[in-house]
Amino acid sequence: MTPGRSASYRRIVDDLRRIIESGELGEGSKLPGVREIATRYGVPTGTVSRAIAELAAAGLVQAKRRGGTYVRRFAAIPRSSPGRLAKERWLGGETIQDADTKDRRRELNTSTGETPAPDWVAAALGVAAGEPVAFRDRRYAVDERFVQLATSYLPVDIARGTQIMHTDTGPGGTYARLAEIGHRPVRFTEYLRARMPSPEETDRLELPVGTPVFEITRHAFNEEGRCVEINRMILDGMAYLLDYSFPA
Amino acid sequence: MTPGRSASYRRIVDDLRRIIESGELGEGSKLPGVREIATRYGVPTGTVSRAIAELAAAGLVQAKRRGGTYVRRFAAIPRSSPGRLAKERWLGGETIQDADTKDRRRELNTSTGETPAPDWVAAALGVAAGEPVAFRDRRYAVDERFVQLATSYLPVDIARGTQIMHTDTGPGGTYARLAEIGHRPVRFTEYLRARMPSPEETDRLELPVGTPVFEITRHAFNEEGRCVEINRMILDGMAYLLDYSFPA
Repeated sequence: MTPGRSASYRRIVDDLRRIIESGELGEGSKLPGVREIATRYGVPTGTVSRAIAELAAAGLVQAKRRGGTYVRRFAAIPRSSPGRLAKERWLGGETIQDADTKDRRRELNTSTGETPAPDWVAAALGVAAGEPVAFRDRRYAVDERFVQLATSYLPVDIARGTQIMHTDTGPGGTYARLAEIGHRPVRFTEYLRARMPSPEETDRLELPVGTPVFEITRHAFNEEGRCVEINRMILDGMAYLLDYSFPA
Repeated sequence: MTPGRSASYRRIVDDLRRIIESGELGEGSKLPGVREIATRYGVPTGTVSRAIAELAAAGLVQAKRRGGTYVRRFAAIPRSSPGRLAKERWLGGETIQDADTKDRRRELNTSTGETPAPDWVAAALGVAAGEPVAFRDRRYAVDERFVQLATSYLPVDIARGTQIMHTDTGPGGTYARLAEIGHRPVRFTEYLRARMPSPEETDRLELPVGTPVFEITRHAFNEEGRCVEINRMILDGMAYLLDYSFPA
């Protein structure tokens, strides 16, 4: 794994990993100090620091600002599809994210406007690259932790001048508004990638090292099969447990 | 992001990231040599090596055994649900993975047997922890690259003595065999996490640093709502593009 490291280094990594994965040192627990571990194994503190850095890169531990290293928590916000996107919910005025995080969530930094269509957006919405598209950009925090970024794109011929372009889209949100103007979504496709975050995503979500993200790109289709919205969501991979249920 | 690094270090990381993300240096392209970059920016080669290590941890580049650093490829094996798991496919004798990777895939290291149920398996299958459960373990390579590990667990009262316990489960695989003995799956739920791999997963999939995995845990339910199989899959996050389609 890490060629050129000493046997002691390897043993420290393996021992710490084992006591974390076995639950002996539970989520949120503080690791012993670097000096204490160094003394126990008879190695320089630098060796211990490098071993802990490897565990951090693996997403197992996190250094806290005020000092100390802690076993990371997997938050497991459940996100159940297709239930959360059922038309009964948004046609009934509910907010989609309430299915996952009601009363625990804040929507922050919401901005709306028009922007030249990036290539991948243009292709999906069927407009020429660089032509204007409407966008809605927001950031979500749950229990005071940033967990998700989301940017929706819609054709301007649909969204311009509607409440979709307000920061508050009203009861039932964008999909309820699309329904009112004859573009009710009847089908969704969510494309998923697991990848490391970009520097901008790391900053906006305040992600510790060793945190992959889910990149989810949802296409919403109306009755005619036209893609009326694309939503690109970036989710903290340590915060969510996604599930998808479907018949055989 | 990386406190204490020099402005030159930061500039090298940012410049390389930009030419990779813009496509100026495409997937599979070789980066300029460390010495060449060091000369261009007027910094020690160690600074360049650390900058490239940061890009590797971000999953953007990969050092090759024979020397040189290359822009990583995102393979994007499409994995479309629920279509790939439609009963018409496996009842018709097709292999599920053929929906994604027909003719490009090899199944390797397949083993079967019985094992004491891990807690999470016991809970889902409704048996006591530590009681025996049947398992099927396999590893998949696509185009000579390891892309997936999969371990299925089934209750012994269902699987024992059936072809499900053979390394080759026959046409249509496990689900077709379950159907023949009165346990046809009628519904699936897939639970998804994005996380960094364990050392064992890193070894078995030969993952470069900076590669997160999808952990997918599928529950298969029969007509009575009993969970008749759990499949824990570990997918190279740089190899797959998952999609889930469903009605509103």
